[in-house]
Amino acid sequence: MLKGGEELDKQFMELAINLAESTAGQTSPNPQVGCVIVKNHEIKGIGTHLRAGGHHAEIHALKMAGNAAKGGTAYVSLEPCSHHGQTPPCSDALIEAGIKRVVIASTDPNPEVSGKGIEQLRNAGIQVETGLMKEEADFINRWFFHSITHNIPYITLKFATSLDGKLATSSGESQWITNEKSREDVHRLRHRTDAILVGSKTVIADDPTLTTRLQDGGNNPIRIILDRSFKTPPKSRIVVERDAPTWIYTLSSASQRRIKQFNNKGTAVNTIDEKENFLEEVLKNLAHKGIRSLLVEGGGTINDAFLNSGFFNEVIHYQAPVIIGGKEAKSAFSGTGVQNLSDAPRLKLIKEERFDDDIKRTYIKQGGK
Amino acid sequence: MLKGGEELDKQFMELAINLAESTAGQTSPNPQVGCVIVKNHEIKGIGTHLRAGGHHAEIHALKMAGNAAKGGTAYVSLEPCSHHGQTPPCSDALIEAGIKRVVIASTDPNPEVSGKGIEQLRNAGIQVETGLMKEEADFINRWFFHSITHNIPYITLKFATSLDGKLATSSGESQWITNEKSREDVHRLRHRTDAILVGSKTVIADDPTLTTRLQDGGNNPIRIILDRSFKTPPKSRIVVERDAPTWIYTLSSASQRRIKQFNNKGTAVNTIDEKENFLEEVLKNLAHKGIRSLLVEGGGTINDAFLNSGFFNEVIHYQAPVIIGGKEAKSAFSGTGVQNLSDAPRLKLIKEERFDDDIKRTYIKQGGK
Repeated sequence: MLKGGEELDKQFMELAINLAESTAGQTSPNPQVGCVIVKNHEIKGIGTHLRAGGHHAEIHALKMAGNAAKGGTAYVSLEPCSHHGQTPPCSDALIEAGIKRVVIASTDPNPEVSGKGIEQLRNAGIQVETGLMKEEADFINRWFFHSITHNIPYITLKFATSLDGKLATSSGESQWITNEKSREDVHRLRHRTDAILVGSKTVIADDPTLTTRLQDGGNNPIRIILDRSFKTPPKSRIVVERDAPTWIYTLSSASQRRIKQFNNKGTAVNTIDEKENFLEEVLKNLAHKGIRSLLVEGGGTINDAFLNSGFFNEVIHYQAPVIIGGKEAKSAFSGTGVQNLSDAPRLKLIKEERFDDDIKRTYIKQGGK
Repeated sequence: MLKGGEELDKQFMELAINLAESTAGQTSPNPQVGCVIVKNHEIKGIGTHLRAGGHHAEIHALKMAGNAAKGGTAYVSLEPCSHHGQTPPCSDALIEAGIKRVVIASTDPNPEVSGKGIEQLRNAGIQVETGLMKEEADFINRWFFHSITHNIPYITLKFATSLDGKLATSSGESQWITNEKSREDVHRLRHRTDAILVGSKTVIADDPTLTTRLQDGGNNPIRIILDRSFKTPPKSRIVVERDAPTWIYTLSSASQRRIKQFNNKGTAVNTIDEKENFLEEVLKNLAHKGIRSLLVEGGGTINDAFLNSGFFNEVIHYQAPVIIGGKEAKSAFSGTGVQNLSDAPRLKLIKEERFDDDIKRTYIKQGGK
């Protein structure tokens, strides 16, 4: 037998990670997980976690493999669970099926769970290896890992600008800066996020619905309006059209009559005490309500608030090859901005995609909150 | 609703094709097929054909999806079958599950089957689209498509050389030109092929076993020895060690006593009439026996025979950064070679991989047999 099995293990782990990646937007509040069962270098079963409450990836793969799982290796992108949640523990199922070896990419970030699945497998005499392609697997569940360890949603700032960084012309035209493919891609982002956030200024200016409108449907995110001065018009489409829940965040000093008016329409109004740090309290409250990922489609003011607070993890920038110019034309970040260059958040470009002439760049913030 | 669903369709078809790709070497004589079932932009089921006789990809995916398949779209890398083979037709299963739309990459090359599955689906009122990512999907099953349309196996010539194209030193040393990772990769090639072919000269010189020795096992190809003058030693490991079937091809003039000697050891000896085109007859016979893919690990003489006959489809060249030199050192192709440059087969480089300092290049022959 040859040495150097790592390349072979990688081949199957890559598939498991690909399966995990494929379910973006449909597993929350659970993480995305893929599983591949292999014996004698042949694939015997594949699985992916489709939805919270449904089978875990390992169970789907074991079901497909049937008796062929016996003596095989299971490649799992995330440590198998060992606790009785909505479904029985996967570690038990792997043991019962006679799996001989388990290769794991990410370990569970939940301190109550971490390592316990591995321990159970090892106690049953199963050979367990961890850490193969951990970076790639961790990346897929960055929203899950971040929200579970920080109790703050994983936050992505998204904006679309001209070459010169403008969100709109001086006259306020903004709808058609980027092309149709870029705009379709934004709907993919919406499908993949638990919630979407705008400021009341955007609601007033654009009257958006913030729903996911893909050819084949898609999941609508919960719609969050940051509205300190509670100016959201009760007749806005986001309030009237009930395609998805809408939650408004305002101050406790807001008129109770107005709050009732919105509540009666089915829009939840949440209030934050004036003295507290408004944005941080909103984010903690969202996490408390189970929001693990948040897409900010704000205008310049909202973007600036997130920039200054440091509460963001990822930046997605669509850039169209058009020059808008104009001192009054709105930029992606208004407000005070960063005062010293050394305070500017450092971003790392991790992906560049093209949609015809538009460019989409995805950055991850290095360090910080 | 936005237009431009092709990008979305591609996203799911890519996964289906990836699933098809993952089972290389385990489905023959059946093709590799992947299936993804999607509704409301969510993945509801994934499947891949694991083994001939087992479920087709569509069935695995439908089982995982359960009731959620109703009203969904099925992405299939190959046209669903409509005939009762070892398993019931997939077109029926898709219809029964209430699938609304089927997107197909490759159509079936088998003239008896081609288009019939599509027709059945359409007759049941299902929207069927074909051709999305056809090139990528066709490529995965190139061995299947070629063998079923030409009745000749899909043939890959594989050789490992020094920088200066030498298979061995003047003294005949050849085992360690390329590094361990390259040699491991050759075992992956073996796992993925139905049969492996060498000449009797290689059997005599190297006494190879030609088995698949990967860390986690792997399928052994059937071992074919081209042996016109029937010189294979009865004590060769390939004859004595019964890890996989060994088939010798020789001429009808061969000694019946010697043939019986090999048959008694479990090695099948096939004879070809002297007057016929030896190589072509061997290949037809292999196809007739169900061999769809053939890996040639020949020395210079065998390689030259394939080169001159035109019977090859793919070339895999491992090249190590070492210079061997020497007029007597064997080159990858000996014999007469091509006389006119215009007769040299044209190859297209389709993949370049690195194994530390070694380079692996995969070429496809353009046109020809």
